Amino acid sequence: MSNSSYHVLSELEIIEYVRKIPGLFSENAQLICKEIGDGNLNLVFRIIENGSSGKSVIIKQALPYARVVGESWPLTLDRARIESEALMIQNSICPGLVPKVYHYDKELALTVMEDLSSHIIMRKGLISRNRYPYFAKHIGTFLARTLFLTSDLALDHQDKKQKVVQFINPELCKITEDLVFTDPYYDAKTNQFNPLIKEVIEEIWGHGELKLEITKLKEKFLTHAQALIHGDLHTGSIMVTETDTKVFDPEFSFYGPMGFDIGAVIANLLLNFCSHEGHTLDQEERLQYQDYLLNTVEEIWIVFEEEFRILWKGKASEPYASIQGYEDDYILRLLQDSLGYAGCKMMRRVIGLAHVSDLESINDPKLRAKGERLALAIGQQLVLKRETAQKIGDLTSLVRYVKNQEVDQD
Amino acid sequence: MSNSSYHVLSELEIIEYVRKIPGLFSENAQLICKEIGDGNLNLVFRIIENGSSGKSVIIKQALPYARVVGESWPLTLDRARIESEALMIQNSICPGLVPKVYHYDKELALTVMEDLSSHIIMRKGLISRNRYPYFAKHIGTFLARTLFLTSDLALDHQDKKQKVVQFINPELCKITEDLVFTDPYYDAKTNQFNPLIKEVIEEIWGHGELKLEITKLKEKFLTHAQALIHGDLHTGSIMVTETDTKVFDPEFSFYGPMGFDIGAVIANLLLNFCSHEGHTLDQEERLQYQDYLLNTVEEIWIVFEEEFRILWKGKASEPYASIQGYEDDYILRLLQDSLGYAGCKMMRRVIGLAHVSDLESINDPKLRAKGERLALAIGQQLVLKRETAQKIGDLTSLVRYVKNQEVDQD
Repeated sequence: MSNSSYHVLSELEIIEYVRKIPGLFSENAQLICKEIGDGNLNLVFRIIENGSSGKSVIIKQALPYARVVGESWPLTLDRARIESEALMIQNSICPGLVPKVYHYDKELALTVMEDLSSHIIMRKGLISRNRYPYFAKHIGTFLARTLFLTSDLALDHQDKKQKVVQFINPELCKITEDLVFTDPYYDAKTNQFNPLIKEVIEEIWGHGELKLEITKLKEKFLTHAQALIHGDLHTGSIMVTETDTKVFDPEFSFYGPMGFDIGAVIANLLLNFCSHEGHTLDQEERLQYQDYLLNTVEEIWIVFEEEFRILWKGKASEPYASIQGYEDDYILRLLQDSLGYAGCKMMRRVIGLAHVSDLESINDPKLRAKGERLALAIGQQLVLKRETAQKIGDLTSLVRYVKNQEVDQD
Repeated sequence: MSNSSYHVLSELEIIEYVRKIPGLFSENAQLICKEIGDGNLNLVFRIIENGSSGKSVIIKQALPYARVVGESWPLTLDRARIESEALMIQNSICPGLVPKVYHYDKELALTVMEDLSSHIIMRKGLISRNRYPYFAKHIGTFLARTLFLTSDLALDHQDKKQKVVQFINPELCKITEDLVFTDPYYDAKTNQFNPLIKEVIEEIWGHGELKLEITKLKEKFLTHAQALIHGDLHTGSIMVTETDTKVFDPEFSFYGPMGFDIGAVIANLLLNFCSHEGHTLDQEERLQYQDYLLNTVEEIWIVFEEEFRILWKGKASEPYASIQGYEDDYILRLLQDSLGYAGCKMMRRVIGLAHVSDLESINDPKLRAKGERLALAIGQQLVLKRETAQKIGDLTSLVRYVKNQEVDQD
């Protein structure tokens, strides 16, 4: 570790630290600090001013190892820099859609940022079948703006190359390369799955065509420096209220394929879609919520495409942006990539390390298996059929068709 | 300029400089220095020991500006670092196929390397219709080894990402982006062409489908960090004897699409092919030499593919390399990319800045136009039909077909 002054701060030290940052709290403020993190890679503290001001901030400090396996799995602190720098870029591109950064400390790998205590993690909201009428508009805009405006379409190509260097992120990319693209497709030690679906998973391990398509998607993840992507845009990286959306935790940011971010959002909505098959629910309530989710997927893409096309017209600096047919071709390839990456991200959450609570919260393994089987079936078809998709309706039709085959025919 | 001690060395200073490098010349050697460069971006000196030893070396010093337009076009000295570091990697991967590097001086942006005085620039050899029976074997091997062994197929993915950073090369990439992919396809000031072919060029400027395909190839050049490519692999960057081949000048190196290097070699053989239409030649001699060139193109690809497949079997570290069908799919995409980039590189040498002496050495503009028209016709078809190619014979058949249409029917 080259950061000689780095050490993990205690709650008391955090309070002293935050007090010294100008403009945050008054000098004599009574501050209360609480570790609220549930991640494995970072400490997250909330500091609240006692009294009527109600002021609060979040401090996130990166750990030099992954907590889940103790100190034996070292992990670069540079990810704190990447996260804070990505947040600052996203803030300037999409003000209001990410937490504000008040302070970044390189030595301590620590970021002080806006507290979102009135928001909840979107995944929890979806498990409770909440509806977020502004979410599609917000996330579609976030995707269009962050992806377009950091790409060669909008940036001077030389600036973009410097940003590729700034956001090179080998260690965190490796986590994705292993856990999303590699381990789930063979009998890897890291895999964890419901024994009841072992047969289906073994079919996947033996499915040559599927594995070839996964390989191509992995290759694109490794080589396609298209835009500064969030890199981990699941519904656990999004906080919501009924009217507000905040995207956070961009420590996996790097220059990668745009479809990886779009696919991540879609995959996590579809995982939630599948999970309701296993929750004890009134049939009609289930169908209505599943419809809501598919409508949201469609709306996200529609907002994304609309916003992306507006940027293409107004903000493209690449002289070829105006070449007849290029915009349509580009957006079609994005749609197809998004299907592919959504498929990968669905399957890894069922077969590999790190599942999602949407499905894990189903206690009965048999009921859970129902949702998991559906997720695997949809995931496979998204990967295999991605190049046949011409519009977002093709994705939702495919999901309905697979669900019909897998579940409704039972 | 941040390199405060940088200054352009005189021939006398060069002699003093080289004398201090241990192991090159004896202490009292009489050294003769001569500037032999004909490039626009660098000074190239040959230092010869007077007497019977016959020892000699080359010193290449990068200029902080492009000489062609005076000091008004500044250019990063970092390209000297990139060149020397690329040469060292290529030397370790392909010993004997690139000049040895004896010394690199960051401050002076200067590299001391093996002299190749017994070799000639391959372009000159081809203009003289020399044959190089080992060239296809050498360059096919060079391409396969440098491209495979610097890619994610062979390298640890984290090491590869560090190499992407090491070889980020914004300024020299910009030259390619402008001069190869952009300026030739509209009425840009930098363009220079034979007025006799203006009509054909205006057709290209108005050819929507062609420009869309060029745009896709440019996008791939901007975003596809596939391997450490040479970046400027024309026949002026290759020195040959009848039995030896040396690739030099990798100052445009960066992580880009493999097909760009393969296409560059093919394009320059095909430009030479076209030029013989304009040289006064016995018909049979012309046809025989053109056959030799097309056979060489085929042989290069065959050697490349064979060597690439051997490396795939023996040197792949990517666990997915063994996925059924991936190798064939990968190589087919390389072939199609190579056709596309070959097409771009042929057209830019006729329409844009910096022509090739193969064609420029034809004094009669009418005769030269004949070769230039053929080059543009072949270039266009290579770009437009690239995705129909399944084997290298499809490329050479296409060339023969276009030549038949363009020239033989006159």
